[in-house]
Order: sequence, then C-alpha cells, then structure tokens
Amino acid sequence: MVENVDLDAVLADIHTQASSFIGLGKVADYIPALARVSDQKFGIAIVACDGREASIGDAHERFSIQSISKVFTLMMAIRLRGLNLWHRVGREPSGNAFNSLVQLEAEHGIPRNPFINAGAHISTDCVVAGHSDPKQAILTEMRNLSGNPDLQFDAEVAASEAEHGNWNAAIANFLKAHNNLEGEVETVLDAYFHQCAIAMSCMDLARAGSFLANRGVDVASGRRIATPRKTKRINALMATCGLYDAVGSFAFHVGVPAKSGVGGGILAIVPGEMSVVVWSPGLDAKGNSFVGVKALEMLMTKIGKSIY
Amino acid sequence: MVENVDLDAVLADIHTQASSFIGLGKVADYIPALARVSDQKFGIAIVACDGREASIGDAHERFSIQSISKVFTLMMAIRLRGLNLWHRVGREPSGNAFNSLVQLEAEHGIPRNPFINAGAHISTDCVVAGHSDPKQAILTEMRNLSGNPDLQFDAEVAASEAEHGNWNAAIANFLKAHNNLEGEVETVLDAYFHQCAIAMSCMDLARAGSFLANRGVDVASGRRIATPRKTKRINALMATCGLYDAVGSFAFHVGVPAKSGVGGGILAIVPGEMSVVVWSPGLDAKGNSFVGVKALEMLMTKIGKSIY
Amino acid sequence: MVENVDLDAVLADIHTQASSFIGLGKVADYIPALARVSDQKFGIAIVACDGREASIGDAHERFSIQSISKVFTLMMAIRLRGLNLWHRVGREPSGNAFNSLVQLEAEHGIPRNPFINAGAHISTDCVVAGHSDPKQAILTEMRNLSGNPDLQFDAEVAASEAEHGNWNAAIANFLKAHNNLEGEVETVLDAYFHQCAIAMSCMDLARAGSFLANRGVDVASGRRIATPRKTKRINALMATCGLYDAVGSFAFHVGVPAKSGVGGGILAIVPGEMSVVVWSPGLDAKGNSFVGVKALEMLMTKIGKSIY
Amino acid sequence: MVENVDLDAVLADIHTQASSFIGLGKVADYIPALARVSDQKFGIAIVACDGREASIGDAHERFSIQSISKVFTLMMAIRLRGLNLWHRVGREPSGNAFNSLVQLEAEHGIPRNPFINAGAHISTDCVVAGHSDPKQAILTEMRNLSGNPDLQFDAEVAASEAEHGNWNAAIANFLKAHNNLEGEVETVLDAYFHQCAIAMSCMDLARAGSFLANRGVDVASGRRIATPRKTKRINALMATCGLYDAVGSFAFHVGVPAKSGVGGGILAIVPGEMSVVVWSPGLDAKGNSFVGVKALEMLMTKIGKSIY
Repeated sequence: MVENVDLDAVLADIHTQASSFIGLGKVADYIPALARVSDQKFGIAIVACDGREASIGDAHERFSIQSISKVFTLMMAIRLRGLNLWHRVGREPSGNAFNSLVQLEAEHGIPRNPFINAGAHISTDCVVAGHSDPKQAILTEMRNLSGNPDLQFDAEVAASEAEHGNWNAAIANFLKAHNNLEGEVETVLDAYFHQCAIAMSCMDLARAGSFLANRGVDVASGRRIATPRKTKRINALMATCGLYDAVGSFAFHVGVPAKSGVGGGILAIVPGEMSVVVWSPGLDAKGNSFVGVKALEMLMTKIGKSIY
Repeated sequence: MVENVDLDAVLADIHTQASSFIGLGKVADYIPALARVSDQKFGIAIVACDGREASIGDAHERFSIQSISKVFTLMMAIRLRGLNLWHRVGREPSGNAFNSLVQLEAEHGIPRNPFINAGAHISTDCVVAGHSDPKQAILTEMRNLSGNPDLQFDAEVAASEAEHGNWNAAIANFLKAHNNLEGEVETVLDAYFHQCAIAMSCMDLARAGSFLANRGVDVASGRRIATPRKTKRINALMATCGLYDAVGSFAFHVGVPAKSGVGGGILAIVPGEMSVVVWSPGLDAKGNSFVGVKALEMLMTKIGKSIY
Repeated sequence: MVENVDLDAVLADIHTQASSFIGLGKVADYIPALARVSDQKFGIAIVACDGREASIGDAHERFSIQSISKVFTLMMAIRLRGLNLWHRVGREPSGNAFNSLVQLEAEHGIPRNPFINAGAHISTDCVVAGHSDPKQAILTEMRNLSGNPDLQFDAEVAASEAEHGNWNAAIANFLKAHNNLEGEVETVLDAYFHQCAIAMSCMDLARAGSFLANRGVDVASGRRIATPRKTKRINALMATCGLYDAVGSFAFHVGVPAKSGVGGGILAIVPGEMSVVVWSPGLDAKGNSFVGVKALEMLMTKIGKSIY
Repeated sequence: MVENVDLDAVLADIHTQASSFIGLGKVADYIPALARVSDQKFGIAIVACDGREASIGDAHERFSIQSISKVFTLMMAIRLRGLNLWHRVGREPSGNAFNSLVQLEAEHGIPRNPFINAGAHISTDCVVAGHSDPKQAILTEMRNLSGNPDLQFDAEVAASEAEHGNWNAAIANFLKAHNNLEGEVETVLDAYFHQCAIAMSCMDLARAGSFLANRGVDVASGRRIATPRKTKRINALMATCGLYDAVGSFAFHVGVPAKSGVGGGILAIVPGEMSVVVWSPGLDAKGNSFVGVKALEMLMTKIGKSIY
C-alpha cells in the first residue's frame, strides 16, 4: 500500500520535473474550442483507496474529458447488457489508429474494443437504448461518480464536435449498415458528442474513477459501483486497449491501466492503491498527453507500483 | 502474498475441473512431430517466489516450447542491445494474426512487437550477431535458467519446422529486403527453428521463468537475471502482446502477463508471487491452449491475483 | 465496320443462346424494389454508328440503371470541372470491392476512380455544385441523350436506396471528413440515390451512350456531346475500372469498355462501331449481370470486335 | 491501317519532342548494374503488321528487359497449362504496388494477375515444371521471337538481382507456404531473375512482340505463335494490368495495351497495326519510363490509334 507515501511531496516533485516537457506536445486543433486551450496547463489529482486526496497545479480546472468518457459509458453498457455486450464489440487491441475504418470493414462491423471510436459508439448505443434521456443519464452518472452536482456539458464543444463530426458519422453509418447500431445514427452521435464534451477537472475525474482502483467501491461514498470482477475486467481492457496505438509503449514505460482523451487528460488506475488523473493539453504523436505520460511514468517509478 | 495458499490443493482442484475441457481444442498439425502429440496431456507447474514448487499431471513431461522461447530470446536480445533493440521492433499489439505480413509491409519492415514471428526473428537475429554459436547460446541459456543441464533441441521438430518453414522464410526475407536483418536469412531461420524446438517440461519452464515473477532474480539460485525495470518491461510486453490475437480476452478473463506456444504450453507470470506453466496440446481458435487458458483463469480466480 | 452485319439476326441468335443462362445469377436484394424484379427478364439493344438500331427481348422495358449512371455524371463533372476533377478522384482500378472504405482510408479520401461508389460521389458533388437543381439537371441530361422526354426517377427505388443508404452515407461522410466533398452530405446523397434510381430501357441507354461509340457525337441527332479526346478517355476508364472487381476478366473474355449496374444492366461500347446495352437482373458473384456478360461475350465473338 | 503513315517521319518528330523530358525520371538504383545506365538513353522501334520497320535513337542498344519478360513467360505458361493456369493466378488489376504482399495474403496466395511479381512467379513456375532447362527454354523463346540468335542473359544483372532478391524470395516462399508453387523456391527464383536479366534492344523486343499486334502471327516469319483468341487475351491483360499502379492513367492518356519494365523499356501493342518499343531508363513515380510514356502518348495522338 502507498499509505506511507507523502502524496503531496511526491506530486510537488513530479510537477516540477514534468513541467520541463510543457510545450513539446501539440494541442488538438480539429475543433476551435479545443485548439484555444493553453498548452501551459498542467494538473494532477490523486484519490487513494485509503481516502486521502492530493492535487497540484491546474487540478481543479475543468477540461474536455473526450475519450476518457468511454470508460464510463462502457460501464453503463455493461450494467445494461452484461455479457451480451461482447457479441457486438471485441476486447482486443486494434493495432490501428483509433478511428480506423479498415479493421471495422475487415471484421464486418464488429469494432475491436470499446475504446476505439467505433466501439464507443456501441456503448453509447446501449445507453441510448436503455435510457429515455441518454445524455442526461450519462451526465447524472458522472455527477454521482464525481460527487460534483455542477458538472455540465460544454455546449460549444458538443456543437463543434457535431459540426466536424463527419468521421464519426462515417463510422456510425458503417455500423448501421452492418446492423450493429440499434438507435438512429443522429441520436447516437448526439449522445456520443455530448459525453465527450463533459467538462471535468482532474479531481472530478479521479474521484469518478476511484471505484476502479478500489475493487468496485467508490472511495468517498463507500457505494458499490461494480463488482470486483467487472472492475478488474474494465481495468484489463484499459491496460490492453486504453491508449490508442501506444498501449504497449505505455505498459512498458508506465505499467498501469489507463485511458486518455484528446483534451489532454489521462485517467490511470493503480489497482488497490489509487486513481490518478493528469491533464496537460499538448499531445504526443499518438494522441496522448505528452506531459501526462511523462508525469505518470515518474509517479510509477517513485511509488514502485507498476502492475507488472 | 500467496504464502498461505496450499498450492498442491489448489492444483489438484484446478486439474480436476479443467480436465473436463480436454478434447475441445485442436492439436497443431502443421508439422507431423507436433500433430502426433496426444491431446489428453495436461500438466501444471508452479514456482512461487518463496521457493515452493508444486506440480500436477504431466508437469514433468517434455513438450515443444515453440513461441514461449520468444520471451527468452527477447531477454537475450535486450541484454545484447539494450534500448537500441527498439529501433528495430515495436512494442504495440498487432491486431493481426501472429504471422501476418500485412502490418509488416505497411510499417516498412518494423515488426509490431517481439512476440509475433517477425519480431522474434529480430530477437534471434541479435542473438545470431552476438554469439559465435547462437543455437548453443540459446540452449545454454535455457539450461541455466531451468537448472536442467539435460535440455535438448528436438531434432525432428527442428527439421520439420525448417521443411515447412516457407512462411517464416517469407518473413525473414521480407525483413532482409527492408534492411532489418543483419544475419544471413538461412542462419537466422536455423536458430529460430531450433529455439522453437527446445523440449522442456512445465516445471523446467516455470523455473526458467521464475525470475520474471521475482523482480529479475532467479528463485532457485538467487542469481540476478535482469534488473527489476527490465523484468517489468518484459512482463508488460507479455501482457499487451503475448497471446497472439487473444491478448485482450486473456487479460479480461485471466489478468496476468503470459506467453503461449502452439505446442500447447503457456507461461504465466504473477508478479511478486509466482510463475506458472500449463501444458495441454489442444488449441483454441486463436492458437492458445484451450485447457491451459481455462486452468489459468481458474487459478487466478482462486488465488485472487489478477494484476488489474 | 459492322455495316455488313445483320444486327437483328445476330441478336436473335445470341438471345436464344444466352437465355440458357437465365436463372443462374442472383437478383440484387438489398432493397425490396430491386429484389422483386423477375430474373427471367432479358433484353438487348444496339445503336450502331451508321444509325441502325436493333433490339430483342425486354429491350424496351425500363429498369433501374443504378451504377451505369456513373458514366453520365462523370461526363457532366468533366464538363463542369475539366482536368481539375482529377485532383479529387483517381483513374486507377481499385482491386477492391466497389464500396470498400479500406482503399479510401489508405489514400486519404481520394477515391481510386469515378466508378467506385466513393468516386461517383465526387462526380455527383460536382454536379450538385454546378447546378441549382442537380437532380433535375441529371434527369434532363439523360432525357436529352436518350431522346426520351418521358424518363423519370423511380421514386420508390430512390426512397428505398436512401433508407438503406448507410454504407453510402458512411462513404460520403468519410469524404467530407477528408475535405473532399463540397456540398452537404445529405444533398449529395439525395442526388446520388436519385441518379441511380433513373428508370430506362436498354434502347434508352444504348441511345444515351451512342456518343461514346461515335467519337463524341450523338448518333441520332448528330449533336456533339464530348470531344473525341474526352470520349476516348471515358471509354478508357470504363475499360480499366467499369466492372467492379471483374474488369480484367471482362477484358479477357469480352474485350470492350463497359459499365454495369446492380439492376442488371450493362452498357458496352465498341469504339467506332456501336453502343450495346444488355439487361438481365440475375447477378454473378462480382455483381455484374450473369446473362449480360455471357451475351456480350457471344456478341464480340460473333462480330469480332474486341478492341484488343 | 497505318499504311499511309511515314513511320520514320513520325518517329523523328516524336524523338525530338520527347527528348525534352529526358532527365526528369529517376533511373532504377536497387541494383548497381541498372543504376549505372545513363538516363540520356532514348530509343524507339516499330514493327508494323505490314512488315515495315522503323527505329530511332538508341533503338539498337541492348537493355535489361526486366518485367517485360513477364508477357513472354505468361505466353509460355498458357501454352503449357491452358486454362488451368487461371486456377493459380487471377486476371484482375491489383490496386497495389507491383510487389505487394498485402493482397497476396488477403487472397490466400493467389496472385491478382500474371504481371505483378507474385503472378510472374507462377508463370515461371509453370515454365520450370515444363522444361528440363527452363532458363535455356526462355532464352530460346526470346531468340526465336526476336529473330536474334545472339540474345544473352546479362550475367551481372542476374547475379545482382539474386543478391538483392529478398523481396522476391519473400514472395516465392509465401506462395510455397500457400501450396501455390510446384518447383523449389531457389529454382523458380533463379529462372525468374534470369528472365528479367535478358538484354535486348528496342528492335529485338518490337520484333518479339509483333505477333501480339498481328493476331498471333509473327510479322517477320509469318509463323503462328498464338491463336487470335489467346493473343487478344494477353493484350487484354496488358491493358488492365500491365503498367503497375498506372494502368488506368496510361489507358486514359495513351490508350493501348502495354507492359513496362524497371529497365526503362515499354512494349506497346496497337492491335492490327504495330508493336512499338520505347526505352529510356529514367522512371516516373509509378516505376514506368518517364520519357517512354510521353513518347507513346505522342505517338498515339499522331496516328490516332487509341483502342478506345
């Protein structure tokens, strides 16, 4: 256990060191609302399973969670569908870019895993089918998990995603053409663009993900969110599929399950120990936060908690 | 720690249960020497980090280790080349069949990882370049790690692999065409076919792999084989790339780093706890031991040691 | 010249022989309006450059021209854009299925040629940009070329195409995501589905395509439709890209430029001699009219007019 | 017929104009023996079906025919195997680079057509199976067809091809792994490298290919080489598959069947009229002679003999 670690001291140390990498990444610019975020932002938040919290830098500033949302809609989809979900989406790393249609075509409309865009459309489709107001259901879920009732969709980001959403529209139509989308393309896309556009801080996300580190139990409330088995399985999927086409390199250098988003956030899980969220908007060539990956590598080296 | 677990009792339990799956897999038949192995064979061996050993069934009968050898030649290649190795081979899961040339062509002769065939040719090429008698060097390594000086190549298997080795010859020539093979194609293939043809028992392999569970220190001898960092990294690669195109599903169901071979063996590592080797020749659709995967899933459920 | 050939006698002969293949193909069933067409239908019409016309069987019954429309919208796009068109679409055979997204992704949104679906979207997009009422413009073009002012869209087919149009919607969105679509996705798709849904007879189509056989001059009216150079180039594209993934086999067995549609029609051009249209709804494994290909092979053998 | 055309005048005109493109292409440099050929070389030779011959520039200097040889070994394979050949190799354009393994893997070891490298290995394999001395058989065939008993293999080129032949060795091993190669890999490769290394002049090649223009009858000797039907079919394959990934563009701009080689030669057939061979070593981005393509385009424009 990391109970003897002074989390504030560790974060201070890492924040100083990792700050030297600020400016080396490139802020996502496919929509204006993301492009204008400063690449100088850098925050880290930790929620330990023993209840301690620690944070540094811009850990309380909200950012667009983007693909990190896929972890939570996957959990909602598993809750709604159980094992039947896996008839519609695989559990293997893709070996291709996160939005590739090649694999999807070769495999007849079954996405490789729930963390590539095509697979996330499946999760969202399940949420759409299972809730009368799917967008509100996702927002409520994130409010409950984070304990923050003020969470909102960033309406500008959601609108901008939709406006520049042709690639995702191609994917959703392709799934529909293969009979692997129940809902209307427009409805699923609308929910998808909104879940990506939720604005949360590092601390919000670390709290929301704490159950993944704590065998399924939310750390702050003690509420059971998922069984230990389902929790492990979501972590396993993050470890093998969570970082686009850098999952092997991340396992090699950092060594814990994680999910990243193009907003520059990364949610990392140290099973039995803590959830950690870093945020810094500059991305590396694979689409993951440049500073974030470095900070997580330093953290795992310091606390010796690679899972491998 | 698993120190309070009665390993013999656990193995007895698992062996009984998993035996019900015998006969559901299909023995590899691409060469006669493998095809004639009985699909009734089933053994398990454990080497715990506290020094205890346990085994059951056919755990002391030798089988062809096949691709499990890739873990050990990778370690030899890392020892010889250090980080330079990673200019020649990637660290990402392939999302394709283990012997696919598609990805290799798309990525200009850089194999995705050291556990697909193309990547293993790179490791072997490093061993060929670094040793005057590379085949003997590999055999010596395996004898030292297993503590068994009687290990031998199965000459019939090696000859049969070479005779039916056109697919691997295609891969090796392709690497050479992309200037990513230093040695002669024939020399590298010969070493490669021999490393795959080493005959070892479950117990031999569990001992040979014990250093991976024990932060780099061989359990029996206390000898340091690799640094803790390198050990973790090899485990991370096994966790993300070790089971062909079933790595995500294996993480989901079993949850530990592992490497399988078409001979029906699987080497699994529970970091800090134990190395486990199962052997049963019938393979599932992805090329992994059908009974072996089931047995490992039962074991991890029983001892609660998924890394996730 | 075929001036000494008795066209009626030749057609009678071919129609009798080729009728033995009726029933061997499979009528397209992806939309109900196509699925219900009888597979017993079989017509042939010829317009010779010397002005003679001949027909047999169901040559005056209208059918859905489907992809044959791509030839005419390509001509309209060339007229509107000239050589600039070729920055947006290639001129090479695809080596893939007609609706594949793989090549499109690998080549960054530039379709291989104007006769695969993605490429036809580009032609249609040009027509959309160049005409205030693009659907009417296409219909007017076909009425003028065929000399038949009664041509209409089949409204049921157009609606059904739209309803089952997710694959084409995926393609159009994908083009838009690559900045290779000027118009709105919905507008282009609507025009595309309508052009495919024009109902024409063999004779209508043979007249409409007669300028391609006659160095750019409409046979009936003597009106110049395209320059000889542009005419040759459209024929060259039909010869290398016009029959989906059967273009080489068709060249081998028949040996003239042609364009087929899933409605069972094929427009074939014998340069300097005649345009020929066959219609029989049963399709072979590559999506071309089974009886139609056979009839054209017999015709070219009889009149000795393979271009090779 | 071109009988009224002054071939010498036409060639003089074209040679002057096309010479302005000399230096814009890039000489093949994958083997030293090709790399050292001057990019200033430029010759054209014509053999008309009426028996006239014309030539200009370096039309009598020998060069390495390379892939042009594939036309002639295909003809030998057809002679040996007839229609059975087409169970082992397709007749469709590849939509991929000439030496791609991607399509070959996707299509289980059946090459797309006889003019990509994999397909040419099939033709050569048939020749190997059908002749006790296959290399001598190929050389004898070329001597007979060209009427030049002095033709030889360029031993240096053949040796150099073998030395740098890993890509072809990968292909041949891959075919063997798919049971689509009868002969030994080494034997087939040796014959293949030799056929590519035959040294011939433009005039030699134009004479050798004259039967393809003349409905199967060698122009000089009047000897029948192939039936009219087989002749047309080889021409059809050249038209749809003969210029690597530029076959559509070549049809569009030039409009006749042709086969190119990386030595800078192109054999073009004007059915019923003439065979033409151009040679200039500088290649365009697709691997075809830059000056050669331009010269052929000028020639077809001048004599108005596009087949389309």
